[in-house]
This record gives sequence, structure tokens and C-alpha cells, in this order.
Amino acid sequence: MQNIFDIDEWKIIETSFDPKKQLAAESIFSIGNGAFGQRANFEESYTGESLQGSYVGGVYYPDKTRVGWWKNGYPEYFAKVLNSCNWIGIDIEVDSEKLDLATVQVKHFYRELDMRNGTLTRKFTCELKNGKIIQIKSTRFCSMNDDEIAAISYSIKPINFSGNVTFIPYLDFNVRNSDSNYNEFFWKEINKKSSTSESFISAVTKKSDFNVVVAFNYTISKDGEHLNVNSTKLENKLYVANKFEVLIEQGSEYILEKYVTVISSLNHEKDLESIAVNKAIQSKKNTFHKLLNNHIKSWHSIWDNADVKIEGDLKSQQAIRFNIFQLYQTYTGNNAKLNIGPKGFTGEKYGGATYWDTEAFCLPFFLKTSPKKVAKQLLIYRYNHLKKAILNAEKLGFHSGAALYPMVTMNGDECHNEWEITFEEIHRNGAIAYAIFNYIRHTNDKDYLLKYGRKVLIAIARFWVQRVNWSNKKNKYVILGVTGPNEYENNVNNNWYTNYIARWCILYALKTDNELGKNHGSLISKEEESKWQDISENMYLPKINNSNIFLQNDGFLDKEFVKAEQLSNNDRPINQNWSWDKILRSVFIKQADVLQGLYFFEEHFDIQTIKENIEFYEPYTVHESSLSACIHSILYSLVKEEEQAYKMFLQTVRLDLDDYNKEVDEGLHITSMPGSWLSIVEGFAGLRIRNNKLVLNPTLPNKWKSYSFNIIFNDQIVNFDIRNDKILIYNKGGNSIELSINGRDIQILENNKIKIEC
Amino acid sequence: MQNIFDIDEWKIIETSFDPKKQLAAESIFSIGNGAFGQRANFEESYTGESLQGSYVGGVYYPDKTRVGWWKNGYPEYFAKVLNSCNWIGIDIEVDSEKLDLATVQVKHFYRELDMRNGTLTRKFTCELKNGKIIQIKSTRFCSMNDDEIAAISYSIKPINFSGNVTFIPYLDFNVRNSDSNYNEFFWKEINKKSSTSESFISAVTKKSDFNVVVAFNYTISKDGEHLNVNSTKLENKLYVANKFEVLIEQGSEYILEKYVTVISSLNHEKDLESIAVNKAIQSKKNTFHKLLNNHIKSWHSIWDNADVKIEGDLKSQQAIRFNIFQLYQTYTGNNAKLNIGPKGFTGEKYGGATYWDTEAFCLPFFLKTSPKKVAKQLLIYRYNHLKKAILNAEKLGFHSGAALYPMVTMNGDECHNEWEITFEEIHRNGAIAYAIFNYIRHTNDKDYLLKYGRKVLIAIARFWVQRVNWSNKKNKYVILGVTGPNEYENNVNNNWYTNYIARWCILYALKTDNELGKNHGSLISKEEESKWQDISENMYLPKINNSNIFLQNDGFLDKEFVKAEQLSNNDRPINQNWSWDKILRSVFIKQADVLQGLYFFEEHFDIQTIKENIEFYEPYTVHESSLSACIHSILYSLVKEEEQAYKMFLQTVRLDLDDYNKEVDEGLHITSMPGSWLSIVEGFAGLRIRNNKLVLNPTLPNKWKSYSFNIIFNDQIVNFDIRNDKILIYNKGGNSIELSINGRDIQILENNKIKIEC
Repeated sequence: MQNIFDIDEWKIIETSFDPKKQLAAESIFSIGNGAFGQRANFEESYTGESLQGSYVGGVYYPDKTRVGWWKNGYPEYFAKVLNSCNWIGIDIEVDSEKLDLATVQVKHFYRELDMRNGTLTRKFTCELKNGKIIQIKSTRFCSMNDDEIAAISYSIKPINFSGNVTFIPYLDFNVRNSDSNYNEFFWKEINKKSSTSESFISAVTKKSDFNVVVAFNYTISKDGEHLNVNSTKLENKLYVANKFEVLIEQGSEYILEKYVTVISSLNHEKDLESIAVNKAIQSKKNTFHKLLNNHIKSWHSIWDNADVKIEGDLKSQQAIRFNIFQLYQTYTGNNAKLNIGPKGFTGEKYGGATYWDTEAFCLPFFLKTSPKKVAKQLLIYRYNHLKKAILNAEKLGFHSGAALYPMVTMNGDECHNEWEITFEEIHRNGAIAYAIFNYIRHTNDKDYLLKYGRKVLIAIARFWVQRVNWSNKKNKYVILGVTGPNEYENNVNNNWYTNYIARWCILYALKTDNELGKNHGSLISKEEESKWQDISENMYLPKINNSNIFLQNDGFLDKEFVKAEQLSNNDRPINQNWSWDKILRSVFIKQADVLQGLYFFEEHFDIQTIKENIEFYEPYTVHESSLSACIHSILYSLVKEEEQAYKMFLQTVRLDLDDYNKEVDEGLHITSMPGSWLSIVEGFAGLRIRNNKLVLNPTLPNKWKSYSFNIIFNDQIVNFDIRNDKILIYNKGGNSIELSINGRDIQILENNKIKIEC
Repeated sequence: MQNIFDIDEWKIIETSFDPKKQLAAESIFSIGNGAFGQRANFEESYTGESLQGSYVGGVYYPDKTRVGWWKNGYPEYFAKVLNSCNWIGIDIEVDSEKLDLATVQVKHFYRELDMRNGTLTRKFTCELKNGKIIQIKSTRFCSMNDDEIAAISYSIKPINFSGNVTFIPYLDFNVRNSDSNYNEFFWKEINKKSSTSESFISAVTKKSDFNVVVAFNYTISKDGEHLNVNSTKLENKLYVANKFEVLIEQGSEYILEKYVTVISSLNHEKDLESIAVNKAIQSKKNTFHKLLNNHIKSWHSIWDNADVKIEGDLKSQQAIRFNIFQLYQTYTGNNAKLNIGPKGFTGEKYGGATYWDTEAFCLPFFLKTSPKKVAKQLLIYRYNHLKKAILNAEKLGFHSGAALYPMVTMNGDECHNEWEITFEEIHRNGAIAYAIFNYIRHTNDKDYLLKYGRKVLIAIARFWVQRVNWSNKKNKYVILGVTGPNEYENNVNNNWYTNYIARWCILYALKTDNELGKNHGSLISKEEESKWQDISENMYLPKINNSNIFLQNDGFLDKEFVKAEQLSNNDRPINQNWSWDKILRSVFIKQADVLQGLYFFEEHFDIQTIKENIEFYEPYTVHESSLSACIHSILYSLVKEEEQAYKMFLQTVRLDLDDYNKEVDEGLHITSMPGSWLSIVEGFAGLRIRNNKLVLNPTLPNKWKSYSFNIIFNDQIVNFDIRNDKILIYNKGGNSIELSINGRDIQILENNKIKIEC
């Protein structure tokens, strides 16, 4: 795989301008702060191919559902992440010629995403058609210190002339979602103002009535000295700008600093306009330099917890940091209304914000790299949607408090509208229960369980109990008509993963209620309890006769068993080259399915069984989901197939940087990014939580000299440094901890390091 | 079930005006002539709820496909039957007040569809808001004698006044399809003219470029005497009219006769405008009376062949004639480009013209009630689409001349866009092969088989041969991922009906090629032949162990076996009350599935087996397709369950007249109408073709005194009259025929009658 951009341990670097790479670069160099984010579009005008993308978390439009043939139960709308105000805009005219990288001659170009500091920088020199040569430097960031603020420093230096330059810093809400169903425009202007001291636009989304106010302020300086300029204001529909002209002198540097605030009704009930305007004024007072320093400090404290250091493999080092960086840009846990969209703030595809990716992939990452409140916030998000999940289930014919969480959502309402997914990919309910279990085993947060978790678990269990039916033929409870994690089969019966997790959910809800019931009363009746017991004892779990292989679903063995390696290049990826019916009939598996279950419930199985199932399923798996290779990598590590584990890890960690799926121009695969971190920590290092104890069974990929990472466990940070000959462990917390390393129990006292020779 | 309209053996009658029934009446009273047709909209203005519907056969618009999530293989467009020029329009103003049944006071109202003569008549008296009372009588027809002509006689009689009346006969192409995907307008004006001697509009469809020219001419008379009037012309976009005023005298009758021609580029390469105009002029010369007489003559000759007479059950008598009438209004076999849309010329739903309904239901009807060229025309239609069916299969990954006929089409291109139907409801291919078999056994038309049929059969067989795969588990060939006739299961494996008909197709294609091969050479290679043999010998045909029950599909027995009678009224119809996943998981069967196969291949099974399968499947069948009850009725007749057979027949025969499914306002169920005819002829009368011989095993429904019908067999008409104590058979043809009645072989000489006592 070829790198699209240069390799560096902390940076993504582009050293020449290639318009064909611009869409990909806009995705890769995206910045955000968990509250809002922005693709790496240019500040100045650009008439080349580009996806102008600016997104505010939690602000959506209920786009009327588009289907072929309406089926009962379909949702009314798809809640779309909204393309929002372009706040980076700074138009530049040099002696009346507009600066536009699509028309000028670019002499030198450098773009850098500094992941350690969270900044996007660009430097270029170009010759305009009028012969004027200028040098531009811009730096921008979305503040991690105050998530309503962004700032840009935009410098211009005339190289071969002195002359007039017009600066037009602006805000522009005239943006459209490229994926709108009926080509509607989603924003309505409420108010706006343009002046040197306060410029803003207040707009609301149609139908959903979210109010977003974006304000800006600016300074202009020459060689570090403030310049006073006379600006005129420009106003158009959903557009405000200030325009001023400066006679720039050859050899001097002119810097426009633009201070932006993005305020939304998600977080403010009133006075949004004044809050935005005042915050922009205050930001200007604070100066770019100070805002930037605060921002960098916030990033450094994230890295203190979350960084993974790899020695001996620069590509992996860069990529794992890229993944960690993008995850923290997308989600900080500061706001219970937000979640983690598949593309974060880097694109529009897949619309809604929340899929089962959150619980199955993202939560385990935040659980181990952040204070527990971050993971808890993700769980509270689902608790807050419980009522809607119950309504969603009722819409499909369930009752008595059974909950079916949506496949895709922004606000708890189901948004997905393909029956085979919406109504049938119900295993998502299991991942939500599993996330609660996972959180509890990391934190032992009984208070959460009592107030929130138990209710969610019971509602989910009630769903499963109603969703099974008794099969006279099998003399077992069966689950008919589902789509498993492998979306290359639809509407199958008895998907092993779904049946297994359903049974587990029922048992875990029972166990939780029994435990909490002792002091707080039970929430389930005796009749319910006995019915639940009966179902969990008699659930059908398909298996291949006389083997240890769990059967993906009924009918799987009727397929033609062709291995993925026999596919030609013209066939791959099959989802782009084959008709849907051919895919469905084929044996090929899109992503870990039985293996996803073995990953979740590893402790329930012996290593030999896991190994045999990997050997059975891997040859038919095409990994055409970004959620697949990481699970295989972790399981390969578990069964000590280190070469395979490393190969699968590479597919995961550089998925976007190397654009494996030829789609990075649409945005990044944010929610699969934790997979690469998990492949290292749970895979190579073999880290587990067992009985309130950290368990480590580390391996070191051949190519690597060492790797180190932190784990937050019971609110304490523990650092692991794994080398060929030794493991260094540093308990940075105030309490001693218990560990098991390669089967050996050890204790590490508070603020203590130990070294284990291997 | 309550009648919506009055009962009469030859007529549908409405004796009062109820605006709430108007949509249903517009459907029921529709008229057409196989080339074009018109809902029973009013000639004069009507501002009440109405679906203005005028349709020209074969003229469609390729409406861009609308889906939720695009899947490879989906068609680009859905070819929609087009709502076309309103040619019936005659606006009437009485002393400046517009006549509009939604605003006047209706004093008397009578509407009649005379099925024997093919005319729609309306008489009413009303008082306008200005106090004027008028009496209106209108009669119209779409000529069965010349299928480019229609005519209207519109009479007005002032009852309590003399005064000025304005007549505005017009044409209006400003019509929209109510079901367009993106609310587009489909017509473009090319030319128009309005004058007393020649008025026309020439319009083309966007994208598909069909040219339709509609012209009209008129006369006005007073008490039978021609009136000369000065008319002015009105022209608007896609609209032309003549307007004139007449001082009408109390007690006199004024009749406007409007002569209309509808010409399309489907049938004319050039000069459409002059053809249309001249034909309208010629029609006027011919006079309304003469045109009507010719039209009636054509209908009488259809009835001579196709009528079914029932004594003792007026509701059934009316209904069976209604079904026959609507079928011949929709399809005459005059044009190889036309087929039979699910709603004919009575509505827009289901868009395209051709489904498997044509081969499975309509063809057997036309085959026995029309000269063989009519059924042959339907087969040639599919032959003409063979290349596109091969391309359609290639699009899905098939090769080497395999053909998959589309689920829905206008021109051979697939138009349906739900994967579970489009890609998976492939049994349609089987029905097309079966229709060829059926045609051949009725006609022995080897010439057709050699020139057309064999090629279609082989291409279809090649599809099946590629569509199976070998299952190691079953040690059989299986067919995975299909939807059977029961669309309440999707993406199932080994649908018995599909597997059975696939195997039969392969064998029938082989047999046909072998037979024709002797004199004309074979079209299949030895390798192909042996592969085909292997597959047909080793096709998996699911069956319930130790029983005679063929299993609908794999997994069916895992369902919860609840009977349809246990469903509450709130549940029925389940397709309106249940979510799609609940329907799919349920045991309920939408329409005959295994039983459809037993109907087609009755000779392959013993009666006991058929009986047991009916007993097994009927309790779970909800008959929510109009194609279901008739098959059950025929099979019940076969196994001598006469009461059940009659019950199912009633559900079929009065489906639209009694509006069982509460949807007749959208149009009629044209393609299921043959089912009621088949329920009588194949069901009650037990008529079959076996070894070039007519076989009869008649029963007489309890309520009936007698029934009689004709069969065209080997180009001769044979009339059957079945009574309680005897059967009368009249061989109207010039050759003797062989029959078997209740197992007794008899011969009837040419032009001879026989009577058989029972």
C-alpha cells in the first residue's frame, strides 16, 4: 500500500499540491473538538473539486425518508448530520485577482496536521496570473480548551511586489448536504449582523429548529504591529463579511487573525447571539497565541493518557496516533447529547450519529484511555433514549417495555430504512447490553447500574424474550429473520452471534436484577424470571455437527465454499462489483460475525475452539467492513498467530491514511479507528480485565522494538512498556493494583514501577 | 360483503350520486379498447375528489429509480404507464355558472356500464345555484372496432328555463401521474391547433420520446337537427378547446357529439397529426350512431366466444361478466408491443405493464376464449424481449445466454427495485416457460416453438442451470436466496415451488430441443445436456419427513404455527397492520406458493397428495394477494371440496365489485380477473387439456342452476352447458373432437351437440 501523505511520528504531511488528492486531504487533515469540526478546506476561495464540510455535533435535519416501496415500520425521516456554516472563509484579492489555488501557479506547498498540538498548518507560495508572487501561511484549530471557539491565523507576504490586497473574512451558511434525499436546503436565516466589532449569523434548521449562531471577529497586523483598517460590511442571504483593503509592502508579513465562536441551542437555551458575539470579542482580547497555548495544553493532557508509543515501525506509529487523534477530535464525553458518528466531523455519509459501533468499538477505547465519566456519558446517552427505544419496539409489535434500540439515530428515533437492517439487524441491542457489562467490569460503578444500567438491561432482555419463538422442529427457542454483523447475508434464521448474545443479555439482566434486587427490590416478576430462565436454557445455538465450529446461521452450509483468495481483482471489493443477490448467495463474509461473538465472550470458550473457528471462517471473510480486520487481529493474537495478527492490524491502522477502500474522500472511518488501538492493547498486549484484575499476555510484533501505552483502570493510570526482553509497568495511581502477567500474579504499589524480564 | 353498486346480469348500475364513492366508481365504470382507456371521470368540470385518468397502452415514462440504499443491479428507472390527455372534457356553463356535480344540487343520478355493449352512460338532473334545472345524458365508448377512436354523446335539456349555455369541448394534456417518484411532469408539447374543423394536441413524453396526438371534432344538434354555431378557439399550454354559446329553449334537447382520435408513435412512424385530424373528421362523417353500432358489434362477437352464463346466482353472473369485460377492454392481442398491466387502463399503481400475472393467469384465459393468435401475441411479446432478458441476467452476473425476465417491465428492461423481488423473485422465469408449454398443449403450434419458443426455453433453462449450486451438506443442487410466490417470506433457500419449476424448465427445454433437434438441429451442446440432466436429477425438493407435504422452503418448520383464523380483525390485512419483520417471521402465507406448483403440475401428483397439501397450507394462507383465492378454489374443486371451492371463487370474482381490499379507488385488479374465470372453467367444470383431448370433471355449485361457457380448442369453439342432471356440449367447429367427461371418452362430430345425463 502506498502512502498518500508523508510519514512522521506526530504529523501528517503533504509537500506538494495535487488537486486530485484534495478531497482525500480534506478528510485526512480534518480538525475538530468533539463539539464541532471542519474538513481541511482552504480558507481562501477554491474552485477545484472540494467537499466544503463544517459540522456541529448533535445538530441534524429530519430528512424525509426515501424508499422504493414503503413497508410498515419504516421511520418517517433520516436524521442527517448537517453541513453547517463555513466559518473558515477568508477571501483574498491581490490587485483585484482572486487568490484561488485552482487557477494560480503553485510554486511551493506544505500542509501539516500536527496531532500532538491539534493544529492544521498550510504554507504555500504561488504566482498569480497577474504575475504577483505571494507567500501564505495559515494555522487553525478548534479549541479543545473551549469547545465553542476556533481561531485562524492567516499570513500573507508579497514576494515580488508591493500592492493592494483585499481581505474578506466571512461566514457563510449557504451550504448544502451532498446526501440530502430530495435536494432540499436545510437552513433558514433568523438574524445576522456585520460590523468590525460584531459579525454573526443566526440560523435555524428547518423542521428540527436547531439554532446555530456563528460569530467572528478579527485583527490585522503588519510585521507584528496592529493595523487599523476601514472595513465595509457585506451582507447577503445567510452570509456576512467584512471587507478591507491593505496596501502591502514587499518583504513585510501581514497576518489576519480570525476568531470564531460556534454556539448552538443544543447547549444554550437563550441569548445565543450575545453569547456568540461576546465570546468572539473575548477571544480577540485573549489573542491567538494564548488561545492556541490553552488548546495545545488540552491536547497534551489527552496524549498523556491516550498515547501509544511504538518503536521500530514509523508507519504504525503515525497511524495509531492518527486514529487516537481523530477519536478525541470527535468525542470528548463533555456532552450527553453527543455521540460518535461513523465519519465524525469529516464527512456526511451514513448521516446519523450513533450506530452499534459506539458500544462495540468506541466505548472500550474511551473506557481505557479516559476517566470513566467519558464512557459513562456514552451509556447515559442510550439510557436517555430508552423511552424511544421502547416506542421503536412497540412500532414493530413488541410490548410490555421491550426496547429495540435504533440502528442509526441522532435523538433516539430510528432513522435507517432498509428492512433487512432496520428491522432485522437487532444484534445491536446486544452490543448495548455488552457495553454496560464492559463498563461495570472496568469500573464497578454500581450506582450507574442501579440508576440507569439495570433498566436498559431489562428492557433489552424483554425484547429478546418476545423476539424468540419456539420451534417444534428444533425443540428449542429460535430467532428467525435477522441480519447478523455479516451484512452479506440478510433475513437469516438463527444467526449464532445474535442467538448467543440474546441469551447472554437475558442472563446478564437476570443476574444484575438479582444482585441489585437484594437491597433495592427486583424489577422483574417471578413469572418473567422463570420464562427468561427457560428461554436461556433452551436457546438454539447452531453448531456444525461433530465439530467445534459455531454455525453462522441456518443454511450457511448449503453455500458453495469458495475461498476469498480465489476471488480475482475484478471481483474485489465484491460490494462494488457484484449484484446484491450474488453477494447474498455467496459464502463471503463481510465482517467478523461468529468471531465477533468469540471476541466478546472469549472467556466462555477454550482456546482450541476459538482457533478452529478462526481457521474455519477467516478464509471466507472479505473484510469489506472497517470493523472486521481488528477483531480478527485480536483473535489471532489470542491464539498466538502473530504474523496474521500483525497483518490484520496493518489493514486496520492505516485504513484511511492509505485509503484501502478508495473512499477516504468522503470522510474518515472514525468509529472503526478504536479497532487499531484494541488490536495493540487487547491483541498484542493481551490486556484483559478479569475479576477486577488487569491481565496481560503480551507479544511483540516482529518488526517492533517496543510499544507502550496507558490504561485507566479503577480511575488510576497504569503505563505498560513492552519490549523484547522485558515488560515495564508503572502504576501512576494512588492505590496499589493487582495484575497477572503471563499467568503470574503480581502487585504493584501506588506510584511504583516494576520490571519483568521475559 | 355489501355491493357498492346495483346488481344486474349485464350492467353495473349506480342510482344515486355519492361523492365518497366517486373514486371507486371511476375505477369500476372505466372503459377501454385494448389500445387506450379512461377512468369514469365526468366530461364536465368536477371539483370533488377524483383521479383523472386516461392511459395509452405502451406509452411510458422512465421515472428515475427511487431507493433508500442503492444496490448493485438495481434498474435505472421504473417505466410508468402514463397518465395522458384528458379527451373526454366538455365544460358546460349555464348562464355563466359552471356545471360541477360537486357544487350543484343533484336531483336524480344514474350511471350505467353496459358490458354487453361496452358503453358508459350517465343521466342526471340537477339544480344549479342560479336555480336553473337541467337534465344531462351522456354516453361514451372507446371503439373496439377501431382502437384509435372514441366518441361521446352529451345531451343537455333545460327543465325550468330558456337561457344561454356555453359548451367548451376540449383536450388537456396537463395531467400528472399521482405516483411519480420525484414529482416531475412527463409531457412536452410539440404542436397544437384549435379550430372548428380540426383541433389537436401533439405531445411527446420526456426522455422516452413517445409521440401521442389526440384530435377531436364535434357536432351540436337541437332535437336531432344540426345547429350551426360560431365557436371561438381557446389555446393554452398543452390545452386546446372550442367554445360556443347556444340559447337553449326549455323542453328542447341539445346534443354535443364529440369525436376523438388517439394516435401514438407506437403504431405510426410519421404523419401522426394528419392521421389524427383526418380520422376525427371521418368519424364525424360516420356519425356517432354508426360508430357506436360498429363498436357494439365488435363487443357482441367477443361475447359470443367469451361469455359465461350462470343461472341462479345473479351476483356471480354480473361479476364474471365484469371480469371478462375488463380483461377484453385491457387486452385484445392486436399489438405485439402491448401487454396487460395489473391495473389496465383503470389506474396507475404498479406502474409497468407486465408481470408474471400475464403468463400465469391471463394467458390461460385468452388461450381458451380467443383465437390462438391472441395468446401467441403474449408469447411473442416475451420473445421480443429475450435479448433484454439476457442483458438483465448479465447485469446480475450470469452469462452464456442465460435469461432472467424482468419482474416488471414495459419494454423488456427490469423496472422493479426491491432486491428481494427484483433479484430474487425469479420464479417468474418459470411461469414464462410454463406459458409456452400451456400454449403448445392447447394449439400444438410447432412453428411458434421452432421460431420463438425454443429459444426462450433454452435461455431460461440456462439461467436456472447457473442459478443452482451444489450443496455438500444436502448432496443435492440447491437454489439459495429466492422469494417465492408468497412474498411474505423473502430471501429464503429452496422454495419448493421455485426449485420444482426450475427443474421442470430444464427438462422441458431439453425435451423441446430434442424433439425439434431431430429435423432442425439442436441448440444445446452435449456437455450442456449432461449437466442439465445431472441438475434435474439431483435438484433438492424439500418435503416434510414422513409425509406428503412439500415444504414451502428451508426453515419454514421453525415458525410458530398459528392459524389465520386466530388473527383478529385488527390484524387483518397483516400487510397493513404488521411491521414487515413480523410478517416475514410469521407463518402466514400471502398467496398460493406450494399450491401454485400443485396447480401448474397437477398431473405429476396424486389427488391424495394434493389434498393433504391444501389441508396443510390453507389454514396459514391469508390470501392478501388477488392471485391467491382462485388457485385455492381450483384445487378445492379438484379434490371435490365444493363448499370451499365456491367460497374461494366468491372472494375472487367480486374482489373489485365488492372492494374486498379497500383499494378499488386506485384502479381494478385486472390481472387477477382471469382467476375467477379459471375457477369456473378449470375449477367447477374441471376442464383440462390432456394428450390433445378436452377433459371435463364438472361440479355445479349448490346455489347455481346451471352455467355455460365456450372453449376455443384447436381453433374450434366448443360450448359447455352444465346443469344438475345433464351436460350439454356443442361442438361448433368444422372438425370432430375427442373429449373425456367424468372419465368417459366421447367423440363429438363437427357442428354437433350432445347431451350427457348425470
